Amino acid sequence: MATFLYQDRTFECPVQLSMNVIMGKWKVLVLWHVLRRPRRYGELKRLIQGISHKVLAETLKSLEEDGFLLRIDFHENPPHVEYQLTDQGRELEPVLLALQQWGMRYKTESLT
Amino acid sequence: MATFLYQDRTFECPVQLSMNVIMGKWKVLVLWHVLRRPRRYGELKRLIQGISHKVLAETLKSLEEDGFLLRIDFHENPPHVEYQLTDQGRELEPVLLALQQWGMRYKTESLT
Repeated sequence: MATFLYQDRTFECPVQLSMNVIMGKWKVLVLWHVLRRPRRYGELKRLIQGISHKVLAETLKSLEEDGFLLRIDFHENPPHVEYQLTDQGRELEPVLLALQQWGMRYKTESLT
Repeated sequence: MATFLYQDRTFECPVQLSMNVIMGKWKVLVLWHVLRRPRRYGELKRLIQGISHKVLAETLKSLEEDGFLLRIDFHENPPHVEYQLTDQGRELEPVLLALQQWGMRYKTESLT
């Protein structure tokens, strides 16, 4: 029987592995916005509806530790830090695009 | 500015809509197994590693109410009930397949 091993956790199903590793409402949203181009912390905070500073900082740290994001410090003054996808992070593009396409079905044009 | 309306909830981003509507570790797993063919309750309980009876029953009910699953009662004795995807549920195929493909990277062949 095939099993699926991610870091030290074994799963019986690839979808269960993916769900455990990448799912988490905020992780996917950070990945989605960084997929389009590298982002600063402040941009992500504005782009992601409802995320708190604490959760955003934790999410970025977790995605970095899991190898999906790279934190780039430009060593400038004022400080300039950006987050970009690693190769492993970019492998998630099909999942992120599929989520985006599914959500697009519910698009409404408002006049604001 | 485009917004994305699902039932009575409005989102600013299609990925955030998808995450809120379909994400939930167990929902995606039930959808994944039913995507391949209609399933009985007992099959789903065996197939989904770690799910409890309570959570499986709630997940099935929620997916039915959201219009992703159809519960079919064959009116037999002993009782014979199956769950299958609705058209709306089938629209999630690209998301489910993308999750499966991403997870397949971590496949290991064990001898058991």
